[in-house]
Amino acid sequence: MLIPLVLCALAAPPALSTTAGAEKVRDRALSGGSVAVEVLQSLTSEIGGRPVGSPAMTRAKDWAVKKLTALGFQNVHVEDFTKKDAWLRGPEAASMTAPYGLPLSFSGLGKSAPTPPGGIEADVAVFRSLEELKAAAPGSLAGRIALVNQPMTRTQSGEGYGSAVAVRGAGPSLAAARGAVAFLTRSIATGPGRAPHTGATHYDDDVPRIPAAALGVADADLVMRLAAQGPVRVSLSMSSTLIENAPAWNVVGEVPCRANPKAGTIVIGGHLDSWDPGQGAVDDGAGVAITIAAAKLLAEGPPLKRNVRVVLFGSEETGGSGEAYALAHAAEVPQLVLAAESDSGAGPLYRLALPKGVAADPALFGLATALAPLRIFITDDVAEHGGSDMEGLMDAGVPIVEFDADASRYFDIHHSADDTFDKVERADLEQSVAGWAVLLSFLANSALDLRPHVDAVASKP
Amino acid sequence: MLIPLVLCALAAPPALSTTAGAEKVRDRALSGGSVAVEVLQSLTSEIGGRPVGSPAMTRAKDWAVKKLTALGFQNVHVEDFTKKDAWLRGPEAASMTAPYGLPLSFSGLGKSAPTPPGGIEADVAVFRSLEELKAAAPGSLAGRIALVNQPMTRTQSGEGYGSAVAVRGAGPSLAAARGAVAFLTRSIATGPGRAPHTGATHYDDDVPRIPAAALGVADADLVMRLAAQGPVRVSLSMSSTLIENAPAWNVVGEVPCRANPKAGTIVIGGHLDSWDPGQGAVDDGAGVAITIAAAKLLAEGPPLKRNVRVVLFGSEETGGSGEAYALAHAAEVPQLVLAAESDSGAGPLYRLALPKGVAADPALFGLATALAPLRIFITDDVAEHGGSDMEGLMDAGVPIVEFDADASRYFDIHHSADDTFDKVERADLEQSVAGWAVLLSFLANSALDLRPHVDAVASKP
Repeated sequence: MLIPLVLCALAAPPALSTTAGAEKVRDRALSGGSVAVEVLQSLTSEIGGRPVGSPAMTRAKDWAVKKLTALGFQNVHVEDFTKKDAWLRGPEAASMTAPYGLPLSFSGLGKSAPTPPGGIEADVAVFRSLEELKAAAPGSLAGRIALVNQPMTRTQSGEGYGSAVAVRGAGPSLAAARGAVAFLTRSIATGPGRAPHTGATHYDDDVPRIPAAALGVADADLVMRLAAQGPVRVSLSMSSTLIENAPAWNVVGEVPCRANPKAGTIVIGGHLDSWDPGQGAVDDGAGVAITIAAAKLLAEGPPLKRNVRVVLFGSEETGGSGEAYALAHAAEVPQLVLAAESDSGAGPLYRLALPKGVAADPALFGLATALAPLRIFITDDVAEHGGSDMEGLMDAGVPIVEFDADASRYFDIHHSADDTFDKVERADLEQSVAGWAVLLSFLANSALDLRPHVDAVASKP
Repeated sequence: MLIPLVLCALAAPPALSTTAGAEKVRDRALSGGSVAVEVLQSLTSEIGGRPVGSPAMTRAKDWAVKKLTALGFQNVHVEDFTKKDAWLRGPEAASMTAPYGLPLSFSGLGKSAPTPPGGIEADVAVFRSLEELKAAAPGSLAGRIALVNQPMTRTQSGEGYGSAVAVRGAGPSLAAARGAVAFLTRSIATGPGRAPHTGATHYDDDVPRIPAAALGVADADLVMRLAAQGPVRVSLSMSSTLIENAPAWNVVGEVPCRANPKAGTIVIGGHLDSWDPGQGAVDDGAGVAITIAAAKLLAEGPPLKRNVRVVLFGSEETGGSGEAYALAHAAEVPQLVLAAESDSGAGPLYRLALPKGVAADPALFGLATALAPLRIFITDDVAEHGGSDMEGLMDAGVPIVEFDADASRYFDIHHSADDTFDKVERADLEQSVAGWAVLLSFLANSALDLRPHVDAVASKP
């Protein structure tokens, strides 16, 4: 597909008022003008799951270059970085051996240590919360496998994940410090699906690195029920490959302001890598597709006053791509007007979190008006985060906004084999593209600087 | 119903560990041991809507005294205060007069000025957001009725209300400052119901106090659609009574720690007053019923180490009862361990927001464990608010916790004629009682002081 060359007007007023322009691009997204569904279908069908360090991720990088080029993006290129420790799953198996021989649905956690070659078999000690594990005495888990079976609360904001995921991250070292030989968590998930949900864990320096895995929700409940009646024994076998200094990539495409290359730049994007069990559809093929589609809608309209840059980050799930990007672009920070990552699923969006004070600026009154029919409100009352890949830029002082999708169903499938293309609703995805396009249209056509607001807040006592 | 006299053990250890005791009271709530449904049914059936200053509110006060006494609460009494300006709705009517004669579903906003005796008839100026109204020039609305038709976003946390309700509160004075003769808002509501949603507004001192009302969602959309084609004219007639220095009441009942009257006191409650169109079921008969039921479950168990006090606030909707309570109990503040209001509907609860740092205290590990099966997580990352009636106590330094129910459907019916008993799900209400009972059980049987945590945070730079 060929897009007419976009030239940005340096002094000429835009053809439409900023609000009307944003509404036009919004309505195009809602009426079939977005490429998001086709991009997402292509990525999930042609590449599938793509952990950093895997052959699939290499193919994903090539796919991204080809796709951005075909869609008419300018300055399409790959930025290399090194992933210190890429973790790839090997064969793994788990089962209950007592009181009954039963299969268990499970998945090793990312970065988990492998079991010894013969595997591990031990009695399970069950805890109903991370706090109950914390209260266990040192040595009390000697020779046992610890299971924390703490349910995750379904929330719209994803806040329930923030609370529950501490089990996955901190659990292994807390269990090891009390003598455990392996760690199991109930899947950090809201749905009833049998499929286990993986995700990264981490180890503290001062305790043994014990193997760590997630059980399916039903399997964790089963172990807990049986453990209330007597000893439950589980056998675990896990292997994995740790690739030191693996090659990794952020892939970039731009809609430039040609008339003024020194114009400020807006960075948006999603992450291209994903976990291995599924297709990486909602996490984060959706973010890739939404931000590409929104930027393309802008490219098809009148010239912009700022550059729009789409960055597809190459190692979000176990970290590294955001830091690499911030490091490589440190000198460019003063030109970066705004950065935002789409990493909360396939929509619909419901909340745009701006830095403190920004929403009260009359220059943004029209932004609220253009977002209102999408049922998106603006707030400055949310702790800024904006996605893992944004942390490096945020620390460097780039204004970050967080655009939140309704995550009520996201954690039913996230990080599991169920994260596939069919789970995405076309209307929700298009509403997300419309929201991102409104934000981009507004800020790429306005002179508003979000930075002074950030400073004003930061300098308050 | 007679409850055995409860004596609190001063030094004797409780019969069960704190966690086990909390789990016992939780499971009683979940298995039919709660009086919440019967209390809510009684209040909504026997009293109905009960704005402060109305005869119904006087009957509600008497109902509360009788109910608390019958349920075995101790020290049941009424605390009088004066409501400076109680507002009661009089006859009101609205219709479209051009381009078509059509009825309009509408409701005057609480504290609205009346129309002149002959009513107001004028052309409508439609705005799609509060920001669009703000951007209108001074004088541009001269002789017109302003309508802000800004949709409210459905959120689990109720955050969408916080964003949308600014239209109801600030809209009338913003419109008046631009010359408008009356103000209409789309109902601040998430549902498609035709019934209008009322609620309090307020006036700035320096602009005319123009009549203000809410249109039904469908009616606001209708006016906007027709206004896109040509002038729309609306006729409004509103009357109301403002009672200066109306008698008002907070009603109190206790589960005392008899062995040590100087033991700390935990204050919980809901608000007894409600808006007039409905029965005040989810707002806030639910809070009344939940907190009464949770405290009664505690009263039926082993002796407590602290006093539990239920306060039914008598003027939340237009303000006054929280301030009156804090003023009357200023000297008692050092003994108030904790205060919390249930005012986010009939459940289910999903989030317990504690003051910063509290959840990390090992004394509360069991609280997380007892709440986990209810799918309630603990956070300290929510801006403390805890309900309007808590503001006075919070300002006085009493630790406040916020126990949040899922509000996804709450604003479909809130402040409208649809706020009736049948909307409440028994299982959700009982889950809420279980959550409150766990919190109460934990804190009424522990020595944990939430105040040092508050001070520690407050004293940080």
